[in-house]
Amino acid sequence: MEKNPSTVATVERWTDYEWVLEGPQDGNPFRDVTLTARFTNLSRSLDVAGFYDGDGRYIVRLMPDMTGTWQGVTASNSPELDNRTLTLTCTTASPGNHGPVRVSNTWHFSYEDGTPYLPFGTTCYVWNHQGDALEEQTIRTLDEAPFNKMRMCVFPKHYTFNSNEPEYYPFVRNQDGSWDFTRPEPAFYRHLERRIRDLRDRGIEADLILFHPYDRWGFAAMTPEQDDAYLDYVVRRLAAYRNVWWSFANEYDLMTKTTADWERLAQLVVTRDPWQHLRSIHNCRHFYDHTRPWITHCSIQRTDNYRTSEYVNEWRQRYRKPVVVDECAYEGNISNNWGNITAEEMVRRFWEGAVRGGYVGHGETYMHPQDILWWSKGGTLHGQSPAR
Amino acid sequence: MEKNPSTVATVERWTDYEWVLEGPQDGNPFRDVTLTARFTNLSRSLDVAGFYDGDGRYIVRLMPDMTGTWQGVTASNSPELDNRTLTLTCTTASPGNHGPVRVSNTWHFSYEDGTPYLPFGTTCYVWNHQGDALEEQTIRTLDEAPFNKMRMCVFPKHYTFNSNEPEYYPFVRNQDGSWDFTRPEPAFYRHLERRIRDLRDRGIEADLILFHPYDRWGFAAMTPEQDDAYLDYVVRRLAAYRNVWWSFANEYDLMTKTTADWERLAQLVVTRDPWQHLRSIHNCRHFYDHTRPWITHCSIQRTDNYRTSEYVNEWRQRYRKPVVVDECAYEGNISNNWGNITAEEMVRRFWEGAVRGGYVGHGETYMHPQDILWWSKGGTLHGQSPAR
Repeated sequence: MEKNPSTVATVERWTDYEWVLEGPQDGNPFRDVTLTARFTNLSRSLDVAGFYDGDGRYIVRLMPDMTGTWQGVTASNSPELDNRTLTLTCTTASPGNHGPVRVSNTWHFSYEDGTPYLPFGTTCYVWNHQGDALEEQTIRTLDEAPFNKMRMCVFPKHYTFNSNEPEYYPFVRNQDGSWDFTRPEPAFYRHLERRIRDLRDRGIEADLILFHPYDRWGFAAMTPEQDDAYLDYVVRRLAAYRNVWWSFANEYDLMTKTTADWERLAQLVVTRDPWQHLRSIHNCRHFYDHTRPWITHCSIQRTDNYRTSEYVNEWRQRYRKPVVVDECAYEGNISNNWGNITAEEMVRRFWEGAVRGGYVGHGETYMHPQDILWWSKGGTLHGQSPAR
Repeated sequence: MEKNPSTVATVERWTDYEWVLEGPQDGNPFRDVTLTARFTNLSRSLDVAGFYDGDGRYIVRLMPDMTGTWQGVTASNSPELDNRTLTLTCTTASPGNHGPVRVSNTWHFSYEDGTPYLPFGTTCYVWNHQGDALEEQTIRTLDEAPFNKMRMCVFPKHYTFNSNEPEYYPFVRNQDGSWDFTRPEPAFYRHLERRIRDLRDRGIEADLILFHPYDRWGFAAMTPEQDDAYLDYVVRRLAAYRNVWWSFANEYDLMTKTTADWERLAQLVVTRDPWQHLRSIHNCRHFYDHTRPWITHCSIQRTDNYRTSEYVNEWRQRYRKPVVVDECAYEGNISNNWGNITAEEMVRRFWEGAVRGGYVGHGETYMHPQDILWWSKGGTLHGQSPAR
């Protein structure tokens, strides 16, 4: 038997293929082992970085975006992982698989196969941190709901109505209980990936929030080096999912990072994401500079209690990018002004934004005896705005 | 001064950039000098073959399809041309530039930026072989006409109403007057390229017919080696124009090539066209096997005097590809049954095909004192079907 036999496989277009390789377990493979692969199909080549998945498992996750035969070859500082080869046949996409979403005609979106994409988004910030029972209820709700985009966080959330601990943490702990930020927790990511695939299989884009301020664990206060290592690992693991969008932050302006930090993080993703997924950064009080070239579309929270959708046409002209109002306030009955509008007013905001050429998203904050508010944890919908 | 300074340039997305290099003139550079370039933009690389343009001029023509910075480096068996470098900044596409046309949603088309493309084609087989005066009249006619696709031949045409000699020939002659098929004529291609750009700048796709049977010069009777060399040169020169489609033949079944020949020629284009332009092959009496994977869409001539558009829905189901009926007969008054339908009947065929989910194209064959029939030579339109 050959020591390193070449792998032969088939996958459909725009779908993640996992090329699994065995490699060293000693030391800290997350930090010490390099692994990239070059895939070539006729005139085209694509460089993809692999990642360590624990237990000696290394994965190069590829989303082939052209049908035909891709020849892959690895490069690594570990001889076991170096110069391994793959022949991957990419077949045409099956119905319902239209590829990643791209900006189209300045202010709009379409899938890579040309099918128009009109975002009807919702927000369940940490539905993926609620344990399987509630998460699966959320999925059943999404099966019946009209949404095709979900804003959700990588990290767990600490906030009013959000006091529970998550099931998985993104890093391994040191013996003293502190985080070892050099060792991501593969189980955390495998769970996140499962939920991203659940969305993908339902035609729902995962508008993935990479950083956010509502934190009691320290994930909002990592050093620049820790942020970079985290983000690099996220891109290596998740970029091959066609439904991923990169939302650099929820409410970036409530975090301690500087503009230079955000720009550095953005450049990291721009240079390392082989598929150039959509990129945005969401504000609380003040917009980020949406003219920055790395920002593909505006992801906006209202900056005034009442008016938001009314500004869509101005923002279109100012930024000349798609305008997605991800928080125009939420249908609900909590005491905060951002979560107590009626279904009628919510729907009015949707239409106001739509006729002005933008895309206004949904969210719902009805009080719940177990604090299961759709806006954060998912579960079931109580309001009336989707049906309207 | 450096011997081989690196070139720095800017071009907009999906637009041809010409990287011009000086190289050897001795021997037969068309045959003897190899030149390719690899262009890299972040994770993506693209291999593009260059061509000899005569007089020691070598060109690598690139259509960058991703914004940002492309780094180019050449490889050649000529030291003068080897390891030359380029830094090309690709800016966003200007309005009206939507990129190449792609198949979308099985039976339809869209531009690469997601804008839908609905073919409203016409045919002027050899309008580009009529000399500048008539060619420019054709362009003025196209300025006023609704067409966004033009079927046209690379080679000149010999046929009823087509007895004139072309201004340019695709090959250089030997001293005895025969063709030197190893030496393409750069002036011929520069003229063809000018006309392709004229169409592009008017939003018209050039559905370029690579071979056709109506020939008195010998271009329909080249050897397989000559066919391959010709086609390779065409792809090197023309693939960087975003509006090019490859139509392997007009009426392939009237030519002496075998299916194996067509399949070999198709594979040549499939493997060498870096941009994977649309590919079709047009019949006279019998369809080519449109299920072949290299065929992106059906380019159809009616197979029955009256009915054609009526079959569109059957063909859609059979081939599961876009159905473009490029010859449903022509509006006109010549004696042939393919060129004597009324404007009313032509328009009926357009609509019949459209409601059945296909795209039926225009053509016009009204008798003309100087044999200037739109269908072949362009000029002006005399009929009424476009306005209807």
